[in-house]
Amino acid sequence: MYNFSHWVQQFHEHFSKQQFPNEPANLYEPCNYFLAIGGKRVRPVLCLMANDLFDELHPSAWYVATAIELFHNFTLVHDDIMDAATLRRGLQTVHTKYNINTAILGGDVMLIKAYENLAQVQPAVLPSILQLFNTTATEVCEGQQLDVDFEQEKTVSLDSYIKMISLKTSVLLAASLEMGAVLGGASEGNRKNLYEFGKNLGIAFQIQDDYLDAFGNPATFGKEVGGDIKQNKKTFLWIHTQKHVTPEQAPIWQELQTRTDTQKIADVLAFYKTTGADAWCKELQNTYYQKAMQHLDAVAVVSTRKKHLQQLAELLMNRSN
Amino acid sequence: MYNFSHWVQQFHEHFSKQQFPNEPANLYEPCNYFLAIGGKRVRPVLCLMANDLFDELHPSAWYVATAIELFHNFTLVHDDIMDAATLRRGLQTVHTKYNINTAILGGDVMLIKAYENLAQVQPAVLPSILQLFNTTATEVCEGQQLDVDFEQEKTVSLDSYIKMISLKTSVLLAASLEMGAVLGGASEGNRKNLYEFGKNLGIAFQIQDDYLDAFGNPATFGKEVGGDIKQNKKTFLWIHTQKHVTPEQAPIWQELQTRTDTQKIADVLAFYKTTGADAWCKELQNTYYQKAMQHLDAVAVVSTRKKHLQQLAELLMNRSN
Repeated sequence: MYNFSHWVQQFHEHFSKQQFPNEPANLYEPCNYFLAIGGKRVRPVLCLMANDLFDELHPSAWYVATAIELFHNFTLVHDDIMDAATLRRGLQTVHTKYNINTAILGGDVMLIKAYENLAQVQPAVLPSILQLFNTTATEVCEGQQLDVDFEQEKTVSLDSYIKMISLKTSVLLAASLEMGAVLGGASEGNRKNLYEFGKNLGIAFQIQDDYLDAFGNPATFGKEVGGDIKQNKKTFLWIHTQKHVTPEQAPIWQELQTRTDTQKIADVLAFYKTTGADAWCKELQNTYYQKAMQHLDAVAVVSTRKKHLQQLAELLMNRSN
Repeated sequence: MYNFSHWVQQFHEHFSKQQFPNEPANLYEPCNYFLAIGGKRVRPVLCLMANDLFDELHPSAWYVATAIELFHNFTLVHDDIMDAATLRRGLQTVHTKYNINTAILGGDVMLIKAYENLAQVQPAVLPSILQLFNTTATEVCEGQQLDVDFEQEKTVSLDSYIKMISLKTSVLLAASLEMGAVLGGASEGNRKNLYEFGKNLGIAFQIQDDYLDAFGNPATFGKEVGGDIKQNKKTFLWIHTQKHVTPEQAPIWQELQTRTDTQKIADVLAFYKTTGADAWCKELQNTYYQKAMQHLDAVAVVSTRKKHLQQLAELLMNRSN
């Protein structure tokens, strides 16, 4: 039984060896560049920790963890094109550093490489892993589509937003844990509880992400604080406010969204406080966090074995960036 | 033992049922649209015919054939973006009818759906099929990258061009046949001979494609004759001519490529005849065709069983569109 840091280190050692060949350089160099940008590698590590929760590491665990991280990076490369994002972790995105065609094809080959890793998985667990992986991959694409769709819509309901968030980000965290559980030989019940733990934790994490984008400390928050407000992005804060503005407040709220001046962010933050969106957001985050922890509690292994996942969940909930 | 037309009809019946769900409509409607554009379905049918060559259809054959056709369509959707192609079979490409983001995500979900079909394949043959599929998928991406790279290069050698063609188009024809052979329980030797049959036939087919784009009959050729010449595309004809122009001809050849007038196509065609590129092209096509047929001859089954594949190869070589 090892903690998060241990598995991050272990995964890093496995994953940092060159994933792609040298030629054709215009295809693979951008892929190697993007993987080197790094990231917290939370998803593959969740898979390893879930395996470790039940049993010694399965011989196929590194292949599954690698496939998960490659899949995640494939989605980032393609999403960055769709979102016209120029930077990721302070470095240029693939379509910015190279071009859109390179980013399309590079993403494609990353996804295929993910499946190449899955093809190495032992036959006894391969069908379960492959089915879970495929279902999740499809859901992630569906979530991305809903996210794109929402940009065109005037308003979005809380339920729709949570559905989008779940598909776009939470199901991969959930499935990473469940795949680890499959590798660890867990029962169906334990697998499902770990899945729900990951799914609810992912939603809580995203609520916090929306909160920090608005109310985070600029000194410790990695991204520009107020970025969502600038773009009138339909976040948890926006959705709550849109629903709860009084008829008297409505014209002010409308006007705020047409503004582009430097004072806009401060004024929207103040407005969010008048509708209570900030407090509601923290409460909603806590609701999903508690739900996540209940599912972890329900996993039928001795509770001491679960402490590393508990600590990780707490760590993720108390981050400031 | 059935012929090509039979299997085209059979595959059509399986494949024409709706492959994607209804929602999110903005994700799946473009996918269904593109699959409905149709095509000859040569690749999945080659898989079915190769299975049929050795044994009755394997219970997993429809999954493999469907995965092959979905993969092929994924490459078309993404390649059309990269090539800025507006039409395919006279209908709008996905990024033209919708937008680039839709075409990226739609292609992604098609590729994942291909793997969903593979995940249904019986465990006894799954590892072989998956490995062959992944290797081929990676090669197709590499071939597409080389094609993109060649556009930026001043000249391309015949060997490099054949390598690009092999990766971009022939290996999928080859692997479709080999996957069928795997499903039919063929020996390693028979598998490899069918692979080489498909690979060489694919190269012969592409040589013919380049030839018909220049010298085809406008009345029967599906695309605009001379399209490659207009764009100064580095085809088999171009590569031969570039290599064999005499010092006296060189300035004329250079000048021809700077032209954009309506007489350009006729003048380049006449020039190709002076360098003998047209005759050389037909000869090269025949060399690869003969090589393909030698590999089919070498497949160790009674020769009467091979007649449908022989007829198909002849049909492909005698097409006028």
